[in-house]
Amino acid sequence: MNVDGVACRSIWVNADGCSIDIIDQTRLPHAFVVRNLCTLQQACNAIRDMQVRGAPLIGATAAYGFYLAMRDDPSGAGMEQAYQLLFDTRPTAVNLRWALDRLKAALLPLKTTARAARAFEEANRIAAFDIDINHAIGCHGLDLIRQLAATKTPGESVNILTHCNAGWLATVDWGTATAPIYMAHDAGIAVHVWVDETRPRNQGASLTAWELGQHGVPHSLIVDNLGGHLMQHGMVDLCLVGSDRTTRSGDVCNKVGTYLKALAARDNNVPFYVCLPSTTIDWNIDDGIEEIPIEQRDGEEVSRISGKTADGKVVDVQISPDGTAVANYAFDVTPAQLVSGLITEAAVIDASSEAIAAAFPERQRQ
Amino acid sequence: MNVDGVACRSIWVNADGCSIDIIDQTRLPHAFVVRNLCTLQQACNAIRDMQVRGAPLIGATAAYGFYLAMRDDPSGAGMEQAYQLLFDTRPTAVNLRWALDRLKAALLPLKTTARAARAFEEANRIAAFDIDINHAIGCHGLDLIRQLAATKTPGESVNILTHCNAGWLATVDWGTATAPIYMAHDAGIAVHVWVDETRPRNQGASLTAWELGQHGVPHSLIVDNLGGHLMQHGMVDLCLVGSDRTTRSGDVCNKVGTYLKALAARDNNVPFYVCLPSTTIDWNIDDGIEEIPIEQRDGEEVSRISGKTADGKVVDVQISPDGTAVANYAFDVTPAQLVSGLITEAAVIDASSEAIAAAFPERQRQ
Repeated sequence: MNVDGVACRSIWVNADGCSIDIIDQTRLPHAFVVRNLCTLQQACNAIRDMQVRGAPLIGATAAYGFYLAMRDDPSGAGMEQAYQLLFDTRPTAVNLRWALDRLKAALLPLKTTARAARAFEEANRIAAFDIDINHAIGCHGLDLIRQLAATKTPGESVNILTHCNAGWLATVDWGTATAPIYMAHDAGIAVHVWVDETRPRNQGASLTAWELGQHGVPHSLIVDNLGGHLMQHGMVDLCLVGSDRTTRSGDVCNKVGTYLKALAARDNNVPFYVCLPSTTIDWNIDDGIEEIPIEQRDGEEVSRISGKTADGKVVDVQISPDGTAVANYAFDVTPAQLVSGLITEAAVIDASSEAIAAAFPERQRQ
Repeated sequence: MNVDGVACRSIWVNADGCSIDIIDQTRLPHAFVVRNLCTLQQACNAIRDMQVRGAPLIGATAAYGFYLAMRDDPSGAGMEQAYQLLFDTRPTAVNLRWALDRLKAALLPLKTTARAARAFEEANRIAAFDIDINHAIGCHGLDLIRQLAATKTPGESVNILTHCNAGWLATVDWGTATAPIYMAHDAGIAVHVWVDETRPRNQGASLTAWELGQHGVPHSLIVDNLGGHLMQHGMVDLCLVGSDRTTRSGDVCNKVGTYLKALAARDNNVPFYVCLPSTTIDWNIDDGIEEIPIEQRDGEEVSRISGKTADGKVVDVQISPDGTAVANYAFDVTPAQLVSGLITEAAVIDASSEAIAAAFPERQRQ
């Protein structure tokens, strides 16, 4: 998608042909800073320090990190070290492990001299694969937006609410929930996006608003509290969110607050769709509320907020009284019955065990 | 309620017996600053600059402001000017008008020399009346908490979720939604409060957390996104919120985001009660969603946040990209069917036209 009018991805091969460039997302939205990764350690730091975030982008960064390691030490010991150091950066990220396993399996049979080149190829394939998947999600979602646009009078926009950042910054390109939005906008369909700020880490206010603004998609930042009111008043035509983990029955674990928007959508007959690559489906889990453990994070994510002061410095400020106790669960689960449909790379399908199994027959357990 | 272990109200007569003290709520939670009001103009500024906020407290402050004016100029012209200047500070505040009308009606028949003393009496009565009402709400709500406490094993707390600040800082004492909580705590019942931070103005994080902390009530600050997850997991026994305006049918207009919590409460069978003085009932309105206009406020309330830096300074920081459009509706409406009951000064009643009319027969139109 565009940044300053120029097409950009979240990770790419530097013009030198062998090092890797990323956008330092910890600096957004106040500064656009590109960082060059030349070593395994730099790739590990980029993931650990959350300069890159979002499961698909973490996977791609790990793959390129593995490649950078192979340039320095393609021995068996070098592979083991690269795997372990990269894996330890964010041990709960599913795509990270998937990418590392794929690299390891591809390189292990090769002579050491062939490993760096093959790792580079594989990393490029992993990145391209992510782009293809998001593009397919975008095409399926575009059909939905097109149908809604057909019900509008000229000049009226399709109003889409999204939560958190399931945008191109979380993937290699397009994003998941944003892919249909970018495609609709690029196709000349009038869309307007309500961007939930997404407390506590404000990924909506800092990342989604930045993405949409850079690409020229009309949008309004709102507090997480507002979506219900907007839906009550017919100001939302469609909710599009991402998924961190989807059960085989269609329950969706996503950034905390997603469930509240799904409740409001049902109460006001607003379609609520979840955009996800099938890789987020956890075939071992049926009941998301009972079975998915929800990560508790540092309370300072809630009690402190980062922002730009009048003189342009970015600082942390404390918003609550000294010593206030905080509870900070990072995700919640939206039960399948609140989900209008899942927009996957294969098709738009019902959020049900039957539809999911039918869409991805090769992926099921047993 | 207690501040630093000493009982405190939000407004009181100074030890000099004739000037008025308030807590400057714009400085909370980072500093506890008492301001002394000696003139009409100081009272107007305190209301306009939101050093005092919350409908009942604004009403009491206006009444004391009228008294301060009468000390300087008790003439008819002086009364007119005091009325107008105070009314213009926050023209949409219902209690403000009610207090001013009451003062005006009481003073008009009197000789000018008698007006200041009578205004002082009336203002004290208005403040005492607010305390009585909140105390009555607290007693009725306490019964509910007591019933919930009876279902707990020893050592378990009753978990109560609240939104925004319907606390003693918004009234003269006790608060509305907090009155049952303070009474339960003072009665030795183990309670724990989930405090919604309440974006965009963070009244939960800055005021409710401060109040509860000062009085020693166990509580945890949470983002507005979290309540649904907590209710899904049985971690909320009761929701208690306030009301800015209640329709005669029981729809509740309160700080934006209240509706989302009510939806989650219904979905998880959590009792959702609204604490309100009957003065917030608008007898002219039936359908809250259709008929209550929702105030849109400055977008900077969303894009900028105030907090304390590491070196103790309180500053504003910008959290979104430069120039991001913002939509900022301040309230939403929770339909009566999502409300388990209204806790009023008269009794706990159903959120229905019939129950409301029966509880306050003298207040109805006609």
